[in-house]
Amino acid sequence: MFEVAELGHTVEKSVYKEKSAQLRTELLTIQHRLKSCPFPVIVIISGVDGGGKGEVINRLNEWLDPHYMRTIALSEPTDEERERPKFWRYWRTLPAKGTIGVYVGSWYSDPIAQRVYQKIDDIALQTELNQINQLEELLADDNTLIIKCWLHLKKDMQVKRLKQLAKNPATNWRVTDKDRQHLGLYDDFIGVAEKVLSETSKAYAPWLIVEGSDNRYSGLTVGQHVLERIRQHIQLYENDLAASAQQEEPPKSQVEQYNLLDALDLSLKLDKADYRKQLEKHQGKLNELSRHALAANRSSILVFEGWDAAGKGGAIRRLTESMDARHYQVIPIAAPTDEERAHHYLWRFWRHIPRAGQVTIYDRSWYGRVLVERVEGMAKTSQWQRAYSEIVNFEEALLAHGIVIMKFWLHIDRDEQLARFKRREEISYKQFKITEEDYRNREKWDDYQKAVNEMIARTSTSKSPWLLVEANDKYYARIKVIKAYCECLEKMLDESNK
Amino acid sequence: MFEVAELGHTVEKSVYKEKSAQLRTELLTIQHRLKSCPFPVIVIISGVDGGGKGEVINRLNEWLDPHYMRTIALSEPTDEERERPKFWRYWRTLPAKGTIGVYVGSWYSDPIAQRVYQKIDDIALQTELNQINQLEELLADDNTLIIKCWLHLKKDMQVKRLKQLAKNPATNWRVTDKDRQHLGLYDDFIGVAEKVLSETSKAYAPWLIVEGSDNRYSGLTVGQHVLERIRQHIQLYENDLAASAQQEEPPKSQVEQYNLLDALDLSLKLDKADYRKQLEKHQGKLNELSRHALAANRSSILVFEGWDAAGKGGAIRRLTESMDARHYQVIPIAAPTDEERAHHYLWRFWRHIPRAGQVTIYDRSWYGRVLVERVEGMAKTSQWQRAYSEIVNFEEALLAHGIVIMKFWLHIDRDEQLARFKRREEISYKQFKITEEDYRNREKWDDYQKAVNEMIARTSTSKSPWLLVEANDKYYARIKVIKAYCECLEKMLDESNK
Repeated sequence: MFEVAELGHTVEKSVYKEKSAQLRTELLTIQHRLKSCPFPVIVIISGVDGGGKGEVINRLNEWLDPHYMRTIALSEPTDEERERPKFWRYWRTLPAKGTIGVYVGSWYSDPIAQRVYQKIDDIALQTELNQINQLEELLADDNTLIIKCWLHLKKDMQVKRLKQLAKNPATNWRVTDKDRQHLGLYDDFIGVAEKVLSETSKAYAPWLIVEGSDNRYSGLTVGQHVLERIRQHIQLYENDLAASAQQEEPPKSQVEQYNLLDALDLSLKLDKADYRKQLEKHQGKLNELSRHALAANRSSILVFEGWDAAGKGGAIRRLTESMDARHYQVIPIAAPTDEERAHHYLWRFWRHIPRAGQVTIYDRSWYGRVLVERVEGMAKTSQWQRAYSEIVNFEEALLAHGIVIMKFWLHIDRDEQLARFKRREEISYKQFKITEEDYRNREKWDDYQKAVNEMIARTSTSKSPWLLVEANDKYYARIKVIKAYCECLEKMLDESNK
Repeated sequence: MFEVAELGHTVEKSVYKEKSAQLRTELLTIQHRLKSCPFPVIVIISGVDGGGKGEVINRLNEWLDPHYMRTIALSEPTDEERERPKFWRYWRTLPAKGTIGVYVGSWYSDPIAQRVYQKIDDIALQTELNQINQLEELLADDNTLIIKCWLHLKKDMQVKRLKQLAKNPATNWRVTDKDRQHLGLYDDFIGVAEKVLSETSKAYAPWLIVEGSDNRYSGLTVGQHVLERIRQHIQLYENDLAASAQQEEPPKSQVEQYNLLDALDLSLKLDKADYRKQLEKHQGKLNELSRHALAANRSSILVFEGWDAAGKGGAIRRLTESMDARHYQVIPIAAPTDEERAHHYLWRFWRHIPRAGQVTIYDRSWYGRVLVERVEGMAKTSQWQRAYSEIVNFEEALLAHGIVIMKFWLHIDRDEQLARFKRREEISYKQFKITEEDYRNREKWDDYQKAVNEMIARTSTSKSPWLLVEANDKYYARIKVIKAYCECLEKMLDESNK
C-alpha cells in the first residue's frame, strides 16, 4: 500500500518557493469562496512518527487565512472529555460551515496506537473503524468535505528522521520515549495502518498517502491536495444548486401506515388519591435510585416527545421534583442558535451530553429531524430518511459509554388536545403557552401521526426502546413515566452490581 | 448580622401549599415577561451547611419554567477549568439574556472555605472579595440582575439539622465528612461569613439573609424575593426605556487630545536583507522560547489592534511561523454570533482563554468596545467609558493566573493606508480584503485617532502595557513585534527560574 510513498520524492528549495507562493494565493482565493458555502472542511493529518505531521500543519497555517481555519490538536482527553462518550471531544471541536478544521491527533490516533500496543484485538479495532466510518459518513452526508492525508516513511528513513530530530537541540524535545518505543514496532504499525487505511478509504473520504521524507515535498503535496478537494467540492455544490433549482424532490416513498399509536388504550386513568399515593412512593424510590446512579457514575439521558399539550412539562417536573437539582439539567429544544445552525443537526445535542453521573432531560430532541422538520418540509426527504440510522448510531454511542437512555412518547388524541388548548387559554399563567402555531400544527395531525409511527418503528431498538405513554389522563401518564425510569435504573444498578 | 434569621420562622403546611401555588403562577408570569428583556438574572444560593440550600434550589426548579432557567452546580474545578483563570468557570456558565441562572456553589464558596480553614489570611480574603465585587459590578453595569440569598442556621440548629440528615437513610449521603468538620468551625465560619456578606452587599447586589431552619419558610421567602427583584428590575428597565426615548445622551466629555500616536517616528524602516537576517534569528529564538513556555505551562495572550491594512495579519503570521501549530490559536474577531450577543461583551473573549501553556492570538479584541463601538455609536458613552476599568480588571485576572499578555498597536499614517488599499485592489487574492467599509472608516480617522489615544492612555498598565509599533514599514514592524514577544517570554522565564 505504501510503495508509492517510498520513492524518495523531494522538492528543490527554489522550486518550493515559487510553488508555495502560488499555492498560497490559490488557497486564500478558494478560502474566500468557501466562506459563503454551507459546509465545513475537515482536514486530517495523520501518519507515522517522524513523518513530518507538525511541519505540514505549520505550512497549512502559514498559507491559509486563520480567520476561517483552526488547528485542533488533541492529545490526552481532559476529565470533562473522559466522562463523556469518546466522540464528544471531536463533536465539540467540529468546524462550522464555511471554515476549515485541521485535525492533528484525530479519531484515528487512539485505535491505531491501541492495536499496535495490543491493547485491543482485531475485532475491537474493526468496531472502532466502523464507528469512525459512521461518523465520517454522517458528516459527509451533511456535505462536510473530509480530506485525509497519511504521511508515510520507509523504515530506515524513520530511524534517520528521529535521529536527526533528536540530535538537533531545537527539535529533540519532540522525540518522546513513546516515539522511540513506536520505532521498535514499525512493522506492526505499518500492518495496522494498512488495515485502517483500507477500511476507512471511502469515496466520500479517501486517504491520500504522502511520502514524508522531504518536508517541502509533503507540504506542497498536502497543500495542493487540500486546494483541489475544496475546489472540486465547491464546484459540486454549485452544480447541485443549479440542478436542484430545476429538479423536483423525489416522490415521497409510500411507507405503509403503521398503527402503533392507534393501538394505545387512551382510556387508562388513575384517580387522584391513587395518583398521590403512587407518586409519593415512586418519587421516594427515584430519589434513592438516582443517588445510587450518581454514586456509580452512571448518567441518564431522558428524551420527551409528544403532541403539543400532551403534558411533557408536567411529567418532567414530577421526575425532577425527586432528584437533586445539582445533578440534572432540563434542555428545552427550541429554534437553534446561529452557532448551532452552522453545524450538523446533531451537534447541538452533543453539546449537552451529561458528565459522569449526571442526568440530561431533553424536552423535545433530535427526533425533531424526523417529526417537525419532516412534516414542515424543513429537511429534505433524503435528509430525514437518512436520519433514522444516524439517530440509532448516535444513541448507540451513548449506550456504549454506559449512559442510560429512555425515550418517552406522550400520546393524547385530537379531542383531548383541543380541550387542553381551551383550558390553557383560560388560565392566566398558561396563556403564553398557547399560540396560533399550536392550532396550525393541529391541522397537520395526520402527517405528524404518520411521522411518529414511522419514527417509533425505525428507532425503537432493544437497547433504546420507545416507551409509549397513554397520556389522556395526566396522572396515569406521570406515574407510568416515573415508574418506568425507576425500573430502568433498578435494572441497570442490578446489572452493574453483578 | 444574623440575629434576624434566628427567630424560628416556620410556615404551616397548609399555608405553604396555598402560597406556593400562587407564587408559582406569579413566577411563571414574570419569567414570561423576562424572556423578552435584554438582561440575564443570576440567583446565588449560599449559606451554612444544613441551611437547606439544596431544598431551596429544588423548589426554584419546581416553580420556574426550565425553558428559561438553569441550575449551575459547581463543585471541584475540572482540569480544563484549573488551567485557566479562576473566574473562567463562571464566565462559561453565565446565563444568557432573558434567562435565569441559579448558582449553587458560586464564586463565594471557595474564598469562604479557604478562610475558615486558614488556607488564606484576611488580606487574601479581601483581595478575593474585591475581585468578586468587580465581577458583580461589571455584570450589574451590563444590567444583569444579581440576587443573592444566604441561608443561615443557629449553631444548635445546625447540629440538629445535620443529625437529622444523617439519621434519615434518604439523606445521610448528603452529610459529608467535610460537613462534620465544618460543624466544629461554626463560630469561625460565621465570622468569615459576616465579613464576606458585609463586604459584598452592594446596592446593585445586596444579600438577603434567610433563616434556614424550616424548608417551607426558606423556600417561600427566597421564591418571593426572586419574584420581587425580577419584577422591580423589569419595571426599572421599562422606565429607562421610556425615559431614554426622550432623553439625549449626555454630552461627550471633553477629554484632552493625547498625542501618543503623533509622537511615533513612522520613517523607521529595515532593508530586506537586514529583515531576512533578523527574522530568521528571532524566529529561531521564539521557537525555542515558546517551547520553554509550554514546558513551564505558561500561557500567552497576544492582542493585535491597529488601523485597517496596518499589517496585523502579516505580523501574526511571522510569529506563528515559528510556533507549533498545535499550541496556538488565532482568534479573528468579527461580528459576534447571536449566542455571544446574548451575553456580556467580554464573554466571547473569555471563551478563548488558552489552557496551560497554550497561546491565543486575538486579531482585534475586547478593545473594540472603546474603538469601533465608541466611534460608530454602537456603545453608549457610559458603556465605553466604563469599559476602560472593566478591561484593566479583566487583564489583571489573566495576569494573576500567570498568563503573559502583550498588546500591539500597529500604527500607519493616512497616506500609507490609502496606498495599501490601492495595492490590495490590484492583487487578485487580496481584493476580497478591501471593501467600501474600509473607505468609510477612513473618513472617521480623527475620531478613531482620538479613541486610540485615549485607549492607550487608560489601559496601558505597567504589567500589561501597549506596545506601539511603527508600521509604515512592514519589515520594521514585524521584527519589532517578534523581538518584543521574545523579550517578554525571556523575562518571564528568567523570573520563573529564580
